[in-house]
Amino acid sequence: MSVEIKKGLEGVYIDESRISSVDGENGIIWYSGYNIDDLVTETTFEEVLHLLWNQHLPDRDELQELTEDLQSSRELPEPVARILERSAQRARPMDLLRTAVSALSFSDPDPANLDDLPRKLIRIVSTMPTILAAAYRIKRGEQPVPPRKDLSHAGNFLYMMRGEQADPDEVRAMDATLILYAEHGMNASTFSSVVTTSTLASPYSSITSAIGTLEGPLHGGAMETVIDMIEGIGSAERAEQWVKEKLENKERIPGFGHRVYRVTDPRCAHFKREIDSLKTEQEEDWVRTIETVRETVENHLGDKGIWPNTDLYSGTMLRMLGIPPDFYIGIFALARVAGWSAHVFEQLEENRILRPRVRYVGETGRRVVPIDHR
Amino acid sequence: MSVEIKKGLEGVYIDESRISSVDGENGIIWYSGYNIDDLVTETTFEEVLHLLWNQHLPDRDELQELTEDLQSSRELPEPVARILERSAQRARPMDLLRTAVSALSFSDPDPANLDDLPRKLIRIVSTMPTILAAAYRIKRGEQPVPPRKDLSHAGNFLYMMRGEQADPDEVRAMDATLILYAEHGMNASTFSSVVTTSTLASPYSSITSAIGTLEGPLHGGAMETVIDMIEGIGSAERAEQWVKEKLENKERIPGFGHRVYRVTDPRCAHFKREIDSLKTEQEEDWVRTIETVRETVENHLGDKGIWPNTDLYSGTMLRMLGIPPDFYIGIFALARVAGWSAHVFEQLEENRILRPRVRYVGETGRRVVPIDHR
Repeated sequence: MSVEIKKGLEGVYIDESRISSVDGENGIIWYSGYNIDDLVTETTFEEVLHLLWNQHLPDRDELQELTEDLQSSRELPEPVARILERSAQRARPMDLLRTAVSALSFSDPDPANLDDLPRKLIRIVSTMPTILAAAYRIKRGEQPVPPRKDLSHAGNFLYMMRGEQADPDEVRAMDATLILYAEHGMNASTFSSVVTTSTLASPYSSITSAIGTLEGPLHGGAMETVIDMIEGIGSAERAEQWVKEKLENKERIPGFGHRVYRVTDPRCAHFKREIDSLKTEQEEDWVRTIETVRETVENHLGDKGIWPNTDLYSGTMLRMLGIPPDFYIGIFALARVAGWSAHVFEQLEENRILRPRVRYVGETGRRVVPIDHR
Repeated sequence: MSVEIKKGLEGVYIDESRISSVDGENGIIWYSGYNIDDLVTETTFEEVLHLLWNQHLPDRDELQELTEDLQSSRELPEPVARILERSAQRARPMDLLRTAVSALSFSDPDPANLDDLPRKLIRIVSTMPTILAAAYRIKRGEQPVPPRKDLSHAGNFLYMMRGEQADPDEVRAMDATLILYAEHGMNASTFSSVVTTSTLASPYSSITSAIGTLEGPLHGGAMETVIDMIEGIGSAERAEQWVKEKLENKERIPGFGHRVYRVTDPRCAHFKREIDSLKTEQEEDWVRTIETVRETVENHLGDKGIWPNTDLYSGTMLRMLGIPPDFYIGIFALARVAGWSAHVFEQLEENRILRPRVRYVGETGRRVVPIDHR
């Protein structure tokens, strides 16, 4: 029997979707038909969350309802707070986030009931920043800061990290990050949440799967590496020489290349703008280092279709917000849960369980031999 | 652009595999070329675990090494024990199992390091029965019973549930259950562990995804329903009439029909044999009720290809072992983790990240309108 193997499911379409599309040729990301260039400058994460869930931007009443629902669901339930208290000092942020979201189910009186799916997903989306901020503070030997109900999703997260309100331009940069990373089609983490959802498992299971899948270095992992690279280069004047040596040795330079884009990732310009607005005098050389790396790589590899991806900038932006590298993938999760949850809703509209096949190529017709004769 | 949509990935082959194959026409399940009819009577779960991981049955030395590794990894790490202590009374077993396996990562000094994958997976396989037994006892207001190192995987599980050693025929029935449910190709839970693994995420993430996916009622859920049915029928003499009424009303009868098998599921005969060996006098009528249901359904629907599946028997067998229905899917997980972990190993042999596509069918080219004009 000869069958075609679709390794990695490359080019296999599993469904129709109204959530997003990516134009890799021209470098445009559309969320339900809106260019993210417009969304990131004209809307907030809360509006984008409503868009991804409902395929239209909210009017004032809808936005107020969603905002209030989110604001009133920020507190950590007792069992989750205890898990963080006991284990946040030693565990990795992504292991904590995955476990804590899974444990949110403990305080849901009926976790399997999908009739109140929106309430469950609001609770997950809203609690994830509280989990991550608590983990951050406990790791530093500080008390977690309880959430505030009067702040935006982005503003409250930075407040819980620091214990004081962030400046408006910092909140805007955080909000932009959440919008830019909110959704990107059927990537591996989103796909894993869809596979889990397809058995009608609870959203606690679905989002837990997605967090676990995002954790893998092939998916969420290059932001930290770029920070290491810039630190390793040390100063802008050494950057060109450093890149040239790497290229001569045919080494990979982190922050470049993407499976989808044939041009610069459209999110880069927005991260760059936020970086320019946030940077202090001491950070000028860091930013120049990035730009020199980018120019040097583009001059040498641009004609091969190797262009900057978001990793080149987003880590630096998060660094300027005072967020340490081991929390970058966690921030990615705070954003992407918008897309994960949107795909959970969409999968359940017309569900079919996801069960592909594998072709058996092993031994056949074996007989069990007693253990002493094996 | 017209593309073919592979909803549910039905008929799509994602890879080659040497782990198992199912012959649905003739009702045979092969684990790496061995008929499970032979494995279940001639080997133990530990031997089957070795087989699924290594594609050959262990010799004495290999079996001893694996057994000792499993036996010495049974204790719950402190953070996991605390989670169960605090939450097992109110949370569902599957929510506890998913969260606890995720939290096993907390006490791994290097959870992301895949070089010691076998050690990590042995720890997961070996700890899952301890987690489930502890949850069971805490739910009943009892102290968890620490594992014993001198018992088999199946025997130790029953010991931890009860606080005393089970009879040999009970241990054999438990062992048979673990073998029969150990693996079944690329089902949804196994697939979700493969998707998560494909980003090079840790096995804590992969197995957590699988547990969450198994939790869904479309996957692991019909054993409980059969128990409810037999209880509802009440006695063997009412069974035929009960079934006929259901069939006349075109209602579905739980415990029948399977996507793959055109004959009786090959696992049924083994569950039936264990039931016959375990049943007490008081359980005779219960067993006759099942048989009358089976005969009546087969007489009416056998020619339509509707045959018994394992759910018809396995719940009853677990009930005879004293295991309550809300723990049945958890038992399924204790068995299936053998298959999940085997597929994790196989995926990493020649990994490609799993990223299918979706066809965008939503609105296009929208412009952001100020919120007061929406």
